[in-house]
Amino acid sequence: MHKAEVISVGTELVLGEITDTNAPFLSRELAGIGIAVERRGTVGDNPARLREDFLQALSRSDIVLLTGGLGPTPDDLTKETVAEALGLALETDELQLRRIEDFFRKRTLPMPEDNRKQAMVPKGCTVLYNENGTAPGCWIKHGSKRIALLPGPPREMKPMFRQLLPLLAPFSSGVILSHHLRTVGLGESRMAQLAEHYLDLTNPTVAPYAKDGESYLRVSAAAATREEAEALCRPVLRKLTELLGSYVYAVDEGLAQTVTRLLRAQGKTVALAESCTGGGIAQALTELPGASDVFGWGVVSYANECKQALLGVPSETLQSHGAVSAECAMEMARGIRRLSGAAIGLAVTGIAGPGSGGEAKPAGLIFLAATDGDRSLERRLETGRGDRAHNRLYAAKQAFDLLRRLLLGI
Amino acid sequence: MHKAEVISVGTELVLGEITDTNAPFLSRELAGIGIAVERRGTVGDNPARLREDFLQALSRSDIVLLTGGLGPTPDDLTKETVAEALGLALETDELQLRRIEDFFRKRTLPMPEDNRKQAMVPKGCTVLYNENGTAPGCWIKHGSKRIALLPGPPREMKPMFRQLLPLLAPFSSGVILSHHLRTVGLGESRMAQLAEHYLDLTNPTVAPYAKDGESYLRVSAAAATREEAEALCRPVLRKLTELLGSYVYAVDEGLAQTVTRLLRAQGKTVALAESCTGGGIAQALTELPGASDVFGWGVVSYANECKQALLGVPSETLQSHGAVSAECAMEMARGIRRLSGAAIGLAVTGIAGPGSGGEAKPAGLIFLAATDGDRSLERRLETGRGDRAHNRLYAAKQAFDLLRRLLLGI
Repeated sequence: MHKAEVISVGTELVLGEITDTNAPFLSRELAGIGIAVERRGTVGDNPARLREDFLQALSRSDIVLLTGGLGPTPDDLTKETVAEALGLALETDELQLRRIEDFFRKRTLPMPEDNRKQAMVPKGCTVLYNENGTAPGCWIKHGSKRIALLPGPPREMKPMFRQLLPLLAPFSSGVILSHHLRTVGLGESRMAQLAEHYLDLTNPTVAPYAKDGESYLRVSAAAATREEAEALCRPVLRKLTELLGSYVYAVDEGLAQTVTRLLRAQGKTVALAESCTGGGIAQALTELPGASDVFGWGVVSYANECKQALLGVPSETLQSHGAVSAECAMEMARGIRRLSGAAIGLAVTGIAGPGSGGEAKPAGLIFLAATDGDRSLERRLETGRGDRAHNRLYAAKQAFDLLRRLLLGI
Repeated sequence: MHKAEVISVGTELVLGEITDTNAPFLSRELAGIGIAVERRGTVGDNPARLREDFLQALSRSDIVLLTGGLGPTPDDLTKETVAEALGLALETDELQLRRIEDFFRKRTLPMPEDNRKQAMVPKGCTVLYNENGTAPGCWIKHGSKRIALLPGPPREMKPMFRQLLPLLAPFSSGVILSHHLRTVGLGESRMAQLAEHYLDLTNPTVAPYAKDGESYLRVSAAAATREEAEALCRPVLRKLTELLGSYVYAVDEGLAQTVTRLLRAQGKTVALAESCTGGGIAQALTELPGASDVFGWGVVSYANECKQALLGVPSETLQSHGAVSAECAMEMARGIRRLSGAAIGLAVTGIAGPGSGGEAKPAGLIFLAATDGDRSLERRLETGRGDRAHNRLYAAKQAFDLLRRLLLGI
């Protein structure tokens, strides 16, 4: 199998000011076409270190992909450094220069002189067109090796990568296919223990990992074709699904997608009443195009007056149980369902933290409720943590799980 | 200055299944105490490659920090690999073993046998306690060099890092202090052009970068003490702020924080009516603890019925201008202000994409409105793109900017 290395370039990366999402994207894309990424590197805008790391990567890999450092500013030096290391001159690509000029003309902006250098490319390279910015990419042949220079901003890099696919095809050796069996409500250790006998398989391999309050099993098969790889994965996925039961919510699909699919299939809508998640559930649901099929009404009832006036939570409920209570959550779910006319009302109220709501209401105490009029489910969470971001994300995941269980009659 | 390298270990990382936020965190923390991270690496759960990369990093750096691969499962091999490379035996740390047993006892879970190996540590190392999981960290002395082994899950790694600070102190050489001058509404090239004369400074350095629809200038100074570094940054930040005027919204502070601070200072509240952002503005505002001081009511009016029934948008407005119009946005802002009694109503309606709303309503066409009863501001966005996530994020940022301008009377 051919090997690729990815080098992410930028002082903002080594200073930790930006989280690199390009390298994981390239890793996924390359894995999918059977090119192995065994290593990645990150280096600042420093020509000497970049040169050294680039040459080392080139010595042990067939393809080196570099992202970043193609910008117009003087510290952007990836192209210059790589060209120098390979002994290639830079020359102006007239077509690129015109494209850059056009880019500014269309936006009725003056073209800064600095942007002119973006039209310079290593002699003999294949120029990759940038639909979303001014920095062209480059594909350089160097003996049997190949080098790709890609811009740093993800919205420029990702569409440009599509132009690389035909150029990468000769290096593709079959397919590595991964499926992710996604569970909610099960810790990684416990999941791995249940699936213990599968973790020693070699093709497909089965590996546990945890992410954002969920635990996954990655099932990966290598084969000549996609169909063969699928055939290797299928029986293992089926057996693991049997083993883990209703903890498994989907294969290769997020929780918000799963509940959207279930709602759509049942022709139902959900309305949301959110307190401590502050709109996070609505936000996650509407990330998906076509969310309006299943969702039309949401209320972020941060204030008690909002819970009473809009959702009709009785003041007695707030007085006797407080806003953070199972009773209030259920009133909120009933209230948003009534108000919106949706099939299902889903509600969350809790203490996101870091501060607590007094001794009896610690940070991380969260109540969820879902009702379709006939059946109602509720859930009490107690994360024991003051981590606001975690508690909010966890509450949103658990709310989706409650909705899933209501829809499936679990 | 002492040098550190960070190696992130995990097959899920090189396959791109997880985005690494540990390495940027460590980079920021180390930079802050004057330890330079010039390079970072990522490698899969492969002992041979990990060994090679670890030894290379150790040969050229004073400190090597590794994250990941300390888990209980058989593919977690960082500790074993590093100990072997350094010629150290592993031995059970009895205190750790008891802590791991306690961890499971407290959660009334059986302890999987696999977790026992997490109590094994390289002989002679300093053990770092894990408050949030079962994998202890290690701090290893190797001649003049130091090695830190840290767990992969960020919620375990980040608190553990605090235990490293006193151990890292002898390697700290003064302070590198960075401030970020944050702008909204100005492209990176244009900002860099305006700040051109500052980009050649050496202490502090000034570097432009772009992130999430905003452009920043990073101003970094190196000095013996924090106070000296601050004194170097201060005049440059002041001059840059004068130069960029009202595009600058803050130094070192996010937009949501800035508007929250302004609202709090003016004793005002904002209520939100969101369509295409789907709760994203409420979500961003309530990420901050204490959001309830400035925010109590939000409506996610995805459906037109919700816009009419809850926000009182007249059906004539929807019929003659459509839901995606300046008129509808302003009615939504007025409606949520009236409904909630908040000082300010802020509303967003638009086509998030990827699909368009017909020829006259392309994806990325978004209308914003803000009103405090006396003064009303509106803004029309046309991103020209079908990128749903970008359009939603961009609309939220612009909405915060509109609110900022309303609050500041700009």
